[in-house]
Amino acid sequence: MSSRITPAEHLKEVQNSFDDSMNPRLVEVLRAAVKHLHAFTAEVGLTHKEWFAGIDFLTQTGKMCDEVRQEFILLSDTLGVSMLLEMINYAASDGATEPTVFGPFHVDGAPNRKDGESIIDQIFPTDSPLAFSGTVNDLNGKPIAGASLDVWQVQSNGLYDVQQGASQRNLRGVFKTNADGSFTINTVRPIDYTIPDDGPVGKMLRASGRHQWRPAHIHMVVSADGFIPVITHLFDQASKYLDSDAVFGVRDSLIVDMSNGHCNYDFVLDSTRE
Amino acid sequence: MSSRITPAEHLKEVQNSFDDSMNPRLVEVLRAAVKHLHAFTAEVGLTHKEWFAGIDFLTQTGKMCDEVRQEFILLSDTLGVSMLLEMINYAASDGATEPTVFGPFHVDGAPNRKDGESIIDQIFPTDSPLAFSGTVNDLNGKPIAGASLDVWQVQSNGLYDVQQGASQRNLRGVFKTNADGSFTINTVRPIDYTIPDDGPVGKMLRASGRHQWRPAHIHMVVSADGFIPVITHLFDQASKYLDSDAVFGVRDSLIVDMSNGHCNYDFVLDSTRE
Repeated sequence: MSSRITPAEHLKEVQNSFDDSMNPRLVEVLRAAVKHLHAFTAEVGLTHKEWFAGIDFLTQTGKMCDEVRQEFILLSDTLGVSMLLEMINYAASDGATEPTVFGPFHVDGAPNRKDGESIIDQIFPTDSPLAFSGTVNDLNGKPIAGASLDVWQVQSNGLYDVQQGASQRNLRGVFKTNADGSFTINTVRPIDYTIPDDGPVGKMLRASGRHQWRPAHIHMVVSADGFIPVITHLFDQASKYLDSDAVFGVRDSLIVDMSNGHCNYDFVLDSTRE
Repeated sequence: MSSRITPAEHLKEVQNSFDDSMNPRLVEVLRAAVKHLHAFTAEVGLTHKEWFAGIDFLTQTGKMCDEVRQEFILLSDTLGVSMLLEMINYAASDGATEPTVFGPFHVDGAPNRKDGESIIDQIFPTDSPLAFSGTVNDLNGKPIAGASLDVWQVQSNGLYDVQQGASQRNLRGVFKTNADGSFTINTVRPIDYTIPDDGPVGKMLRASGRHQWRPAHIHMVVSADGFIPVITHLFDQASKYLDSDAVFGVRDSLIVDMSNGHCNYDFVLDSTRE
């Protein structure tokens, strides 16, 4: 009797089953997915019971998803995949502002705001005012006029406006830089908040000794014609969660002092190269 | 400005976030899962659009699951993970009968049947009778008396009894070998059939040039006190899908001639080693 098919031969058989003449990129992605799935399964020596626990976890994660809750994105976030996606898709050179996770709370078509305008449409009792100013420059330090800053952040009640089904414009706005590259935005100081933890991802975090907190931050997409846009945050250096962000988004270069009612940041964009 | 965090440093940060003092095995599995997820993402250079297509695929797969349909198991089957699971969890030496996938259609507590008894409780017009006989032996060729053969198979209409919500005993039975290790089972010749293809997994198969057919087979679990049980199939050598089983379960040593109304197979079990 001949010896059994090895895991390597089995993998090859699965990879060869896909016909890459139909959709070369899909098949490239499937072949890589299968390779890493098999490698994971063999490396940990997955048991039948563990395999079924995994099947059940994925099923429950799917069941948790609806129009306003995307538990698989939360899983991607909490396993660091979403952050990695930003890292590998950001073509700018070192020296440009670092990117971080996009998150699920951006809204297309936020209101255009004038320089210095407030983005506060709804006041909460614990609001603490923050004047956020700075500049947008190119890699040589030359100011970029008319650069766009699309900003959004959590409210002082720990929710984004869209989580309340609200107006979808509180603490949101699109600003343009002045001729000298400068901007000023009046807002509130962001607070630490939790990602949704009443689903399978929350269970995974608790079972593995992790928490569900994100350090206080302001989101922004900074863009300008002829430059590579950056999806990023600015973090409050007073947060106690800077070293344990539930979604691994913190970068040292993105931490700023927000303690005195104002903060300042100079963004740097790299030009697009054709 | 310092250079950016590398993907390797990012991975380390994610892996270090899990506290293995809480549940060492869970954390071992999570760390390996994260490592392979990140490696996959970077290796294919996953784009935002592709990432979201993946999120959506997993979400739809979860939504497809209910009491009788388990689309994530189907995904595991069609990517060869279920077969790999059997390979890595089968401790028997070469020379013992090869294992293959368990599948979703086994029923605990199938009826005990006498040697030579028929497992046909419901007759279909296209049934073709099959007498299936053989022996169960140890690695030295010594017959094992009282070994158990738990067998089940698809009906001639292309469905397992449980897929019809039926009696859950048609084409099922548990047999015991005689003193000389022999058994005889009267059944029908199995037919090729399709796995459910009206969900996300079916879409994946079609988009990558694969089909949804499984080659005709009879399922069995062969077990005996003091021996390592084997979960396996016997395949009909006349099937045209032997080289393209949708779940990668075929092994040359499990293909038999069923063309003359009877088939014969000698199973070999390895003893348990303590």
